Amino acid sequence: MEITLDSPLDMHLHLRDGDMLKLVAPLSGDFAGAVIMPNLVPPVTEPGGMLAYNQRIREAMGNTPFSCYMTLFFTKQNEQQLALAQSTPSFFAYKLYPAGITTNSEGGVARLAEAENTLKLMEEMGIPLLVHGESHGFVMDREAEFLGVYRQLAQQFPKLRICMEHITTAAALDLLDEFENLCATVTLQHLIITLDDVAGGALQPHLFCKPIAKRPGDRDALLQAALSGHPRLMFGSDSAPHPRCKKEACGCAAGVFTAPLALPKLAEIFARHGALCQLQSFVSGNARRIYGLTPLAKQVTLQNTPMAVPGSYRSYGQQVVPMYAGEHISWSIKS
Amino acid sequence: MEITLDSPLDMHLHLRDGDMLKLVAPLSGDFAGAVIMPNLVPPVTEPGGMLAYNQRIREAMGNTPFSCYMTLFFTKQNEQQLALAQSTPSFFAYKLYPAGITTNSEGGVARLAEAENTLKLMEEMGIPLLVHGESHGFVMDREAEFLGVYRQLAQQFPKLRICMEHITTAAALDLLDEFENLCATVTLQHLIITLDDVAGGALQPHLFCKPIAKRPGDRDALLQAALSGHPRLMFGSDSAPHPRCKKEACGCAAGVFTAPLALPKLAEIFARHGALCQLQSFVSGNARRIYGLTPLAKQVTLQNTPMAVPGSYRSYGQQVVPMYAGEHISWSIKS
Repeated sequence: MEITLDSPLDMHLHLRDGDMLKLVAPLSGDFAGAVIMPNLVPPVTEPGGMLAYNQRIREAMGNTPFSCYMTLFFTKQNEQQLALAQSTPSFFAYKLYPAGITTNSEGGVARLAEAENTLKLMEEMGIPLLVHGESHGFVMDREAEFLGVYRQLAQQFPKLRICMEHITTAAALDLLDEFENLCATVTLQHLIITLDDVAGGALQPHLFCKPIAKRPGDRDALLQAALSGHPRLMFGSDSAPHPRCKKEACGCAAGVFTAPLALPKLAEIFARHGALCQLQSFVSGNARRIYGLTPLAKQVTLQNTPMAVPGSYRSYGQQVVPMYAGEHISWSIKS
Repeated sequence: MEITLDSPLDMHLHLRDGDMLKLVAPLSGDFAGAVIMPNLVPPVTEPGGMLAYNQRIREAMGNTPFSCYMTLFFTKQNEQQLALAQSTPSFFAYKLYPAGITTNSEGGVARLAEAENTLKLMEEMGIPLLVHGESHGFVMDREAEFLGVYRQLAQQFPKLRICMEHITTAAALDLLDEFENLCATVTLQHLIITLDDVAGGALQPHLFCKPIAKRPGDRDALLQAALSGHPRLMFGSDSAPHPRCKKEACGCAAGVFTAPLALPKLAEIFARHGALCQLQSFVSGNARRIYGLTPLAKQVTLQNTPMAVPGSYRSYGQQVVPMYAGEHISWSIKS
């Protein structure tokens, strides 16, 4: 069995910088493009820094054609800044982080009310807003507690394209269905795991991410929405590499590295549920329609021949452990 | 400020075996005694093995007087086995583990219905039943899902003394109040932490234990019950040492090591809430009344002078990291 995907897109990707960028960027090369998150240290807040980062990504990608949809860290930019960003090649959207909620998000926005002017301008200018939607509450409630903010944003700015990034709950799906101007990304791991996989047996740092994996009912609802071809749900891996030594130590950093195996695993899952026909929309079609994207043409064929996931990926003095390290996935990319 | 405790007891303690036993046993020496859990590899199921284990504990304790309340791993023992256990010095109770639910519990009981005869005999003979009360369900629901089993046990065996070990939820406290034949232990960490402390920021393996820390409302209810002198709630540290290398690696083992700092930290907490007068009942009085224990006489004075918690305890080639490693506790033991 085979399926050929037309320009698959990863709508939420962390490529980091420096040697880690050099290691992981080529591992996303089966995608036609990706939305690149700006939470470097310091975060990417200005078009100049964004262009330079884009250039470093292109160099790390080598000869692999790849559409970079660059994002800027939302910091209540003014009209002039928004206009400059919008006129900058590769710019795609602003990413809003509630302050301090995830890796390198300390500079995020603490109170949304202060950002109303910027959001109004973005709505008028047609600039998408991508949101890491978590409160500062109890870890299992953070996304649910943030839904009121999404609701308020969706109501107050009806023409603003708002993406609920890496949703993890059934409640977020319910909200998604309420507002046409909301869309959402979901990761590979949140279609598969629950908190049980992170902390139900022995502690599994390589499955620890933010937002944390939730309950079985949440996972099942997300999977069902993806398999059924929900028109405003897009694949965004949130593939988030950390050095092995930081993942396997006390105070393990949050993030699951899935970029090199995401498409084979998605094909395995969709095939197992008889839903391969929905994969194209999930990994490309919905994003292209929602955002009006025209990624570079790239066809990727997946086949039900096993892929051996390496125990780690190493290069440039960096080492990253992927999800399913040392295991087999029953689908693979046909080279 | 000072408080002198009369024969403090740790009603749930893991001392392990071998070199780890030699390291950790003396670190419980401020207590007058403890209930010693039987989940070694293989578990302690027979009085002979229990006596030998008791002897190894006594040797590890050196010259420190200490009352060992030994337990046997519940395996549907018959009348002859129960009688032999009851006549064996130091025997205290049976510990029931649902199969496979925690460290070294693979040999536990899978279906309670099969154990009815043994439980009826224990009720008649006055042998307490200590229970690790978790289902095999979703990690945050395991204790709540097991409460029906406690309810059934409490109703079916009204004279059986049933201890809900290391409770972690407000729901367990509610059940405790319903049945006079139920009692419960609670750990130090479950009076203090929630899942946020384990996985809400960076992952903290040294705070990872089973049952896993729950929600803020659960923690608050447990603390309030302890501070208010709940008559059937007892301190049981569940202090569960693992080698540092096993706690700080992928697949971190469950358990928090608190034995050497439990009394100072409890004094700090009870003093902060103006409840020092309840500490004696919590760490000794309730257990002595509920089980009719007469531990050896040992007075321990706690003072509000800081204790520096070491980064780790090392000896006999073993290294264990305690809760609050490298931090200060504002109370200490007066030597």
